[in-house]
Amino acid sequence: MAGNGFGQIFRFTTWGESHGPAIGCVVEGVPPRIPLAEADIQPWLDKRRPGSSRFTTQRQESDKVQILSGVFEGQTTGAPVSLLIANQDARSKDYDAIKDQFRPGHADFTYWTKYGIRDYRGGGRASARETASRVAAGAIARKILGNKISVRGALVQMGPHEIDRKRWDWKAVDENPFFCPDAATANKWESFLDGVRKAGSSTGAVIEIVASGVPAGLGEPIYDKLDADLAKAMMSINAVKGVEIGDGMGVAALSGETDADEMRMKGGKVVFLSNHAGGILGGISTGQDVVARFAVKPTSSILTPLKSVDKSGKEVEVSTKGRHDPCVGIRAVPVGEAMMAVVLADHLLRHRAMGG
Amino acid sequence: MAGNGFGQIFRFTTWGESHGPAIGCVVEGVPPRIPLAEADIQPWLDKRRPGSSRFTTQRQESDKVQILSGVFEGQTTGAPVSLLIANQDARSKDYDAIKDQFRPGHADFTYWTKYGIRDYRGGGRASARETASRVAAGAIARKILGNKISVRGALVQMGPHEIDRKRWDWKAVDENPFFCPDAATANKWESFLDGVRKAGSSTGAVIEIVASGVPAGLGEPIYDKLDADLAKAMMSINAVKGVEIGDGMGVAALSGETDADEMRMKGGKVVFLSNHAGGILGGISTGQDVVARFAVKPTSSILTPLKSVDKSGKEVEVSTKGRHDPCVGIRAVPVGEAMMAVVLADHLLRHRAMGG
Amino acid sequence: MAGNGFGQIFRFTTWGESHGPAIGCVVEGVPPRIPLAEADIQPWLDKRRPGSSRFTTQRQESDKVQILSGVFEGQTTGAPVSLLIANQDARSKDYDAIKDQFRPGHADFTYWTKYGIRDYRGGGRASARETASRVAAGAIARKILGNKISVRGALVQMGPHEIDRKRWDWKAVDENPFFCPDAATANKWESFLDGVRKAGSSTGAVIEIVASGVPAGLGEPIYDKLDADLAKAMMSINAVKGVEIGDGMGVAALSGETDADEMRMKGGKVVFLSNHAGGILGGISTGQDVVARFAVKPTSSILTPLKSVDKSGKEVEVSTKGRHDPCVGIRAVPVGEAMMAVVLADHLLRHRAMGG
Amino acid sequence: MAGNGFGQIFRFTTWGESHGPAIGCVVEGVPPRIPLAEADIQPWLDKRRPGSSRFTTQRQESDKVQILSGVFEGQTTGAPVSLLIANQDARSKDYDAIKDQFRPGHADFTYWTKYGIRDYRGGGRASARETASRVAAGAIARKILGNKISVRGALVQMGPHEIDRKRWDWKAVDENPFFCPDAATANKWESFLDGVRKAGSSTGAVIEIVASGVPAGLGEPIYDKLDADLAKAMMSINAVKGVEIGDGMGVAALSGETDADEMRMKGGKVVFLSNHAGGILGGISTGQDVVARFAVKPTSSILTPLKSVDKSGKEVEVSTKGRHDPCVGIRAVPVGEAMMAVVLADHLLRHRAMGG
Repeated sequence: MAGNGFGQIFRFTTWGESHGPAIGCVVEGVPPRIPLAEADIQPWLDKRRPGSSRFTTQRQESDKVQILSGVFEGQTTGAPVSLLIANQDARSKDYDAIKDQFRPGHADFTYWTKYGIRDYRGGGRASARETASRVAAGAIARKILGNKISVRGALVQMGPHEIDRKRWDWKAVDENPFFCPDAATANKWESFLDGVRKAGSSTGAVIEIVASGVPAGLGEPIYDKLDADLAKAMMSINAVKGVEIGDGMGVAALSGETDADEMRMKGGKVVFLSNHAGGILGGISTGQDVVARFAVKPTSSILTPLKSVDKSGKEVEVSTKGRHDPCVGIRAVPVGEAMMAVVLADHLLRHRAMGG
Repeated sequence: MAGNGFGQIFRFTTWGESHGPAIGCVVEGVPPRIPLAEADIQPWLDKRRPGSSRFTTQRQESDKVQILSGVFEGQTTGAPVSLLIANQDARSKDYDAIKDQFRPGHADFTYWTKYGIRDYRGGGRASARETASRVAAGAIARKILGNKISVRGALVQMGPHEIDRKRWDWKAVDENPFFCPDAATANKWESFLDGVRKAGSSTGAVIEIVASGVPAGLGEPIYDKLDADLAKAMMSINAVKGVEIGDGMGVAALSGETDADEMRMKGGKVVFLSNHAGGILGGISTGQDVVARFAVKPTSSILTPLKSVDKSGKEVEVSTKGRHDPCVGIRAVPVGEAMMAVVLADHLLRHRAMGG
Repeated sequence: MAGNGFGQIFRFTTWGESHGPAIGCVVEGVPPRIPLAEADIQPWLDKRRPGSSRFTTQRQESDKVQILSGVFEGQTTGAPVSLLIANQDARSKDYDAIKDQFRPGHADFTYWTKYGIRDYRGGGRASARETASRVAAGAIARKILGNKISVRGALVQMGPHEIDRKRWDWKAVDENPFFCPDAATANKWESFLDGVRKAGSSTGAVIEIVASGVPAGLGEPIYDKLDADLAKAMMSINAVKGVEIGDGMGVAALSGETDADEMRMKGGKVVFLSNHAGGILGGISTGQDVVARFAVKPTSSILTPLKSVDKSGKEVEVSTKGRHDPCVGIRAVPVGEAMMAVVLADHLLRHRAMGG
Repeated sequence: MAGNGFGQIFRFTTWGESHGPAIGCVVEGVPPRIPLAEADIQPWLDKRRPGSSRFTTQRQESDKVQILSGVFEGQTTGAPVSLLIANQDARSKDYDAIKDQFRPGHADFTYWTKYGIRDYRGGGRASARETASRVAAGAIARKILGNKISVRGALVQMGPHEIDRKRWDWKAVDENPFFCPDAATANKWESFLDGVRKAGSSTGAVIEIVASGVPAGLGEPIYDKLDADLAKAMMSINAVKGVEIGDGMGVAALSGETDADEMRMKGGKVVFLSNHAGGILGGISTGQDVVARFAVKPTSSILTPLKSVDKSGKEVEVSTKGRHDPCVGIRAVPVGEAMMAVVLADHLLRHRAMGG
């Protein structure tokens, strides 16, 4: 109810602030007898970890995850899995300057208005640091999904620069610091983002998450449609302002003839001749790739002074000099993957409950 | 859990199929002593009702709502409000032709795969007829929001044709059959949609919902952010494939300087100099207009024959000759308003629980 | 959240007041392809129906149930099943006398204090008439449990008079108007209750519900233990003040040696040599009979004038002359069975979700 | 859904096993700006702590609680409060003997059957050690309830020996190792329990929890009645087999005249002349003391060998030689208090949401 958890059967609840002693989450609904160790989770955290290239914040966090419960002799027991990640490089005094100011584009003003108190250090609870817990939970979700279902993400637009989809290559994603599936565009982004970074500015981005091998039948209409839960999952990520499934906002311009995914039989199975629907019809997976996209706004922490006010109602100019991501969308890729994984794991178990 | 309800404190659960005896919903969490009668709900249902112009399905439904509980001597009692809407014009035999076929773009294939049984009459549970219940629940939500909060919607794009935002006029919305806020564009849409309709085709649309007067402080981070719940709410509407808050997908192309909404004091209050954020920061309302947009795909029921398969695995051609909306997005306007209203009402009560 | 529903996966939400047009419920989480018709539900409602003997209220209600959704061609579809029971014999004016008074032992004072408004006719939402919806939902739960699991209830104490457990005979239950499993005691109760009834008084009772054939493994520790959910289910029934599992309150007086249920192997299976635990250990079913008991207080509506106050703070004497059950515990038997069935059905589906 | 949490708005989720590195919980729905420190929680944990007298287990645990989140500069922030308690005296090898055996009365057999895996060390997840997390959450709940609402518990029966209620003295509770409100009976219990302990046996108990100062109006009928939630809360505690509100199971023997709590006006307020109802009518608090009682079965770990089986289906004799509570009911007193506090805090916030 207080909004710190996600999922129905596979459910995780996160806690912790950017500059507190630690962050973490409790993962419930993990079926028993699944092999699980820290080593299954750590690689995904490393992918999201700050400080891994000059294009992400220089905050240094090892993000080592610790399993505190729910695993016995290398296997899950059906009990909740408690995960803890210690905070290390928390320079709280960096934030003294803005403790009474509301940074534009940040949650400072709204948290203050809602709660009447605000942990201003590094954004407190509103910090994107919370997404490390999502990635950890997502790693467990992947274990539930098994090897037949893969969840992969990529950056498909940075600022005004989109990739060329004809050059899409999943292998390229791991070979540049942007998770870009198009090597040629990755090169362009490098110089673009260097410019943004040096100017003390920031840029937005679009991330695409693709789940392959998802069986048909996942999703609980009417309100817990698979796409409705994905929309909530993605929109809940920091700085996200738009979510699309399949053709997304673009469907508005289509006619019924162009939008429909026709069907044929192939090897005794139903196949679709296109995937405008992004693998979901009526809120239920079709068996095609599930495709979700989301837009991340430019990091609000920039060098340029912006007009704002402080807690006492005084008008001020705010400029952020600390360590920040020039394109926070990059590190949103593993977060988006995690959210796709947790939604699918939850719906897999929900479907199973009803005999699916 | 089974996905037929929405909301936490203000929660409604819907039931019913397109061609069953009735549809309806149970609305829980309605505070006591709110004046409520059928007459408070009916106008919103009339707005969504089919058969009101040549641009919507010709199915004739009076959509008269009946309050069965929770109201005593003209006031709510705190008990659940049960609402019932009888189905009248349910020509089930129209659907005999497609009872064994999967219509492309529809939920036929996925419902069949998930449940192993399908009420094929008019789409059964997957029919947009279900949205009447949403509108009814939304009318009650509006009573909770009170007069200071208004929720209004408009069609801002039909097919490839967008409105001119400079001509936005809320009054125009009620003066054309498209809920279009730009009279000049409405005229263009009329001939465009006549063409679509006569061709037996269909078209997509974009709907924008604006809530004014929303107090700052609504929304429960991290996972029940106001925008996350709005995203789920809108994506759960039939045929929706994309949801945006504020600048939406467009934020990807922005820089931090252009995206930030600066703040100043005015009359002792914090005011924002722009609203790129759509009235939500960190998942919490800012006090500005809350702005959500969603794209509705073109009606999948079209005259043009499409390739498909049937339950026995035979390849078939499917063409739909029945009564259908050439642009189902039009009637999605009051539905989107209702979903905005229910999300806000729920969060108003949730905020109040925590002392807000 | 507002408390009108019960269950997680198998979940039903009830609505309606004693003297409104109808009562009913929406049942979600019913797996698809289960044969279901009104005739599967009606017999259980008939068992609870008022007016069936001189020992229950003389209000005449046929309690005919109507299925409004979720069933197609005789089978469930996975969509919510909406059930409606019309109110017929609602003599509202009988209640004019007490519209401003708080009847001792009833919910009049608390509803008024909580909500500031009260549907006083027949107890409104607080009336035991609501339990008809539970019984209807329970009938669907039984269909999910299947034939291998039986749920039976009996009255084991009326006023100070307990049954003799050595004479327990399930067949006797259907052969007397008290659901008493001991024919000899039933005879005694008949004259006892005649005395109570003629004196305008009332009496309490204890009901025992036994579920046989329940597989080991149902229950979700820690907080959704099978016995915790049963305790909530039974305590939520009108007028219930105590709930016991197995030896219940009596375990306090036992030693570890006498309380433990020892185990042996029999035909390759684990068998227990006693059932002090009532079929539940650590919140999980053991495979033995699940045994729950609950105490129902004497009907608060009695002829004897009792001291009370009215809405204006005036001291009054209240005496109830209308139609009432001298021992409301009798009709609680089918209600208790229904609550056992819904808890088991929910946990069966929950267990299945986790791979059980 | 997986059952590790309790509450709707004020909600806590626990994790951890008896012999893992730590246990803990995440507490959500804590309103902002409440002063909170470890020192507010520790005294309640100390009250429950093992090893405090010869009548409780000799396992030595300091049970020091650590707040990891949700508190900033001494006040709650509205963010989840994560609490961690390290396990110290975890002699896992004590349990090697029973790793393959099912101890009668314990959850060994059911966990094994349900999950197919079992952390056998000290009962793993099923250990009463989990209740430390409840007590910690309860301490936060007390801060929400404030000083006007007090929650106190006492042991009122040990084995067959009940207290004399005429001698009830709350001060006595803190002056004997049994939380007994009747000093004379406490003396008797001392020799009784010494006998039990030396015989390697164990005994059951009844605990009574009384909340004073609870405002009228708390509780959400129909299914989330205050008493229904209390029943679930208490029954979810390890080894509890019965729960009573007010007169409890005893109401069965009463007549309507004796059971009814009559009302009169006093100083402009409604007062009740008795409290058979235990402060709850129609599931809503009346303003009187809320009184709940529960029975705890005798510790199943006893010296006497009992018949059982092991994982391979071999018949064995099990006798427990480790450190154990001869009357586990004693340490259930602070646990019962905590559960009363969390139920009340949750309902206080739920009531506030609806305008109460």
